[in-house]
Amino acid sequence: MTTDSPAPPIPARSWAIIDSTLREGEQFARGNFGQGDKIEIARALDAFGAEFLEVTTPMVSARTAQDIRVLTGLGLRSKILTHVRCHMEDVRRAVDLGVDGLDLLFGTSSFLREFSHGKSIGQIIDTASEVIGWIKTNHPDLQIRFSAEDTFRSQEADLMAVYRAVSDLGVHRVGLADTVGVATPRQVYTLVREVRKVIHAECGIEFHGHNDTGCAVSNAYEAIEAGATHIDTTILGIGERNGITPLGGFLARMFTFDPQGLIDKYNLDLLPELDRMIARMVGLPIPWNNYLTGEFAYNHKAGMHLKAIYLNPGAYEAIPPGVFGVGRRIQAASKVTGKHAIL
Amino acid sequence: MTTDSPAPPIPARSWAIIDSTLREGEQFARGNFGQGDKIEIARALDAFGAEFLEVTTPMVSARTAQDIRVLTGLGLRSKILTHVRCHMEDVRRAVDLGVDGLDLLFGTSSFLREFSHGKSIGQIIDTASEVIGWIKTNHPDLQIRFSAEDTFRSQEADLMAVYRAVSDLGVHRVGLADTVGVATPRQVYTLVREVRKVIHAECGIEFHGHNDTGCAVSNAYEAIEAGATHIDTTILGIGERNGITPLGGFLARMFTFDPQGLIDKYNLDLLPELDRMIARMVGLPIPWNNYLTGEFAYNHKAGMHLKAIYLNPGAYEAIPPGVFGVGRRIQAASKVTGKHAIL
Ligand SMILES: O=C(O)CCC(=O)C(=O)O
Ligand SMILES: O=C(O)CCC(=O)C(=O)O
Ligand SMILES: [Cu+2]
Ligand SMILES: [Cu+2]
Repeated sequence: MTTDSPAPPIPARSWAIIDSTLREGEQFARGNFGQGDKIEIARALDAFGAEFLEVTTPMVSARTAQDIRVLTGLGLRSKILTHVRCHMEDVRRAVDLGVDGLDLLFGTSSFLREFSHGKSIGQIIDTASEVIGWIKTNHPDLQIRFSAEDTFRSQEADLMAVYRAVSDLGVHRVGLADTVGVATPRQVYTLVREVRKVIHAECGIEFHGHNDTGCAVSNAYEAIEAGATHIDTTILGIGERNGITPLGGFLARMFTFDPQGLIDKYNLDLLPELDRMIARMVGLPIPWNNYLTGEFAYNHKAGMHLKAIYLNPGAYEAIPPGVFGVGRRIQAASKVTGKHAIL
Repeated sequence: MTTDSPAPPIPARSWAIIDSTLREGEQFARGNFGQGDKIEIARALDAFGAEFLEVTTPMVSARTAQDIRVLTGLGLRSKILTHVRCHMEDVRRAVDLGVDGLDLLFGTSSFLREFSHGKSIGQIIDTASEVIGWIKTNHPDLQIRFSAEDTFRSQEADLMAVYRAVSDLGVHRVGLADTVGVATPRQVYTLVREVRKVIHAECGIEFHGHNDTGCAVSNAYEAIEAGATHIDTTILGIGERNGITPLGGFLARMFTFDPQGLIDKYNLDLLPELDRMIARMVGLPIPWNNYLTGEFAYNHKAGMHLKAIYLNPGAYEAIPPGVFGVGRRIQAASKVTGKHAIL
């Protein structure tokens, strides 16, 4: 890497990955990880270089709590966060498991306020004050994130009141969650900018996006463009319904802005192993249209393409496959190759 | 549909689908459609209500040309366009096959100019003048589209010169193609706006986007927000490498802005049949994380979600599954359901 190359438009060091395969991924239909699986996933993500791992709340069961203790005892470089509802009961249970931080969650949309917990915005802020105050007093070393579930169907005034309050209370990050996967890239960009204005400068912004309407990768990218610092991913994107921002798709997107930054930060050529590991554990194939590691991700077929690909692979490839440990396939014998097929 | 409901933010009647399963889809690794397949695909898309079908250039073979003739003879409501290079030779071959229009393509990026056809921007415009002039004189009823291949790696000044020239020559649409799948939603939005300024008011704008970096659906949506009128899709997104904007994902995205408009325009409940048909023809499963029709698209698992889902499915669903002919699955017995599992 030369020192006089221009700064990349979006430096890879401006954001970090919170991989949630061990939390959101457990909410996937087939995400039933035993303790051995969890250890394997955590070690693999650590080897890859994921900055943070998010794990399921200990409230699920004594076994889940025990699994967290095992994971935090592995001595990984990845920091381990546990996802908990913003309740004193949950938080008290979570603080003694050796985690580096707590990802607090509270639903702020009218949908969730009406059909889930039934609280007003004032009550949400009161509860947050109690919970955050208690953590800061009793466990000052823990990172605290506060996320507004279903952010993109919440009233903007409500959101701003909540984010401003929790930032004043000293959380390290606020979270925006596109829980049902409806947010558009422009909405994400705009809202992250607005949130930036009401929180403290040292407070980070995390984005968590579902993929129901096909925007999970681009929304993560737009969040970063607007100032977000942390992105939730899962391996293969597994999660509730059709999942969230996939680690591989997100890396493919971000690679185009700062290739060297990504190469420096992560062991990118481990991606195929990560994808294969999760496919094995959930008992499903890597989708054939998967980013980077799908069977046909680097399959070139049309004749007009083949000539150019031979002369310069960059002609029809956004990302050189070798960086991510995958290969290229030139399909020269098909009927749509036309007259350049022999080149 | 009540007449006094407010206008939807993005009316479904402001854009049309150009389904390219019979062209881009043929460039998919496993997209080898016989004449029977092509007829079945065309009839299914016609029944669905796709406004346009794009088919492979007749230059590939005499058989491909014959297939086009068969498709145009079916008497479908969907208009049939054939994709051809912007060459006199190709155009002469295409005009007698009964198609409704020609989708002309010319590479404008320095990558393609250097490693593919070797022409300058001036030469591109000269060729376009000859080809478009000839079509307008000899086949005035044909729709003409001119697309700049690899638009998003082309110089903006070059693009504007080309689009302005072909609009002056009287094309019906200009096309923006994200050939290698690198464009971001913001870039697409911005460029469509710029193009709008240099073309005639009655000239449409088409967007074609590959999915290598996960933005094919959101880029199509942003294109429409910026004034695009036509979007290229394929069933299941099949195409070169990992494909383009999938029909289902695109519909999921647009449904959120104008549900009734989509219901009026398309037979949405035929989507599962379309997805199954293509999966069968390419000999691959519908990806388990597919939009709307994937095995787990409507699988709800987490306990906190289940309570709300029972009270109001909208709590955790962007789009009611029934509209697209699919069902919901509540997975109440899993270990992450926690204490609300019995609700
Ligand atoms: O904790 C968060 O920010 C996200 C929670 C979640 O999975 C969601 O809202 O989809
Ligand atoms: O004709 C077009 O607009 C697109 C051609 C194509 O498939 C591409 O550039 O990816
Ligand atoms: Cu989630
Ligand atoms: Cu294409």
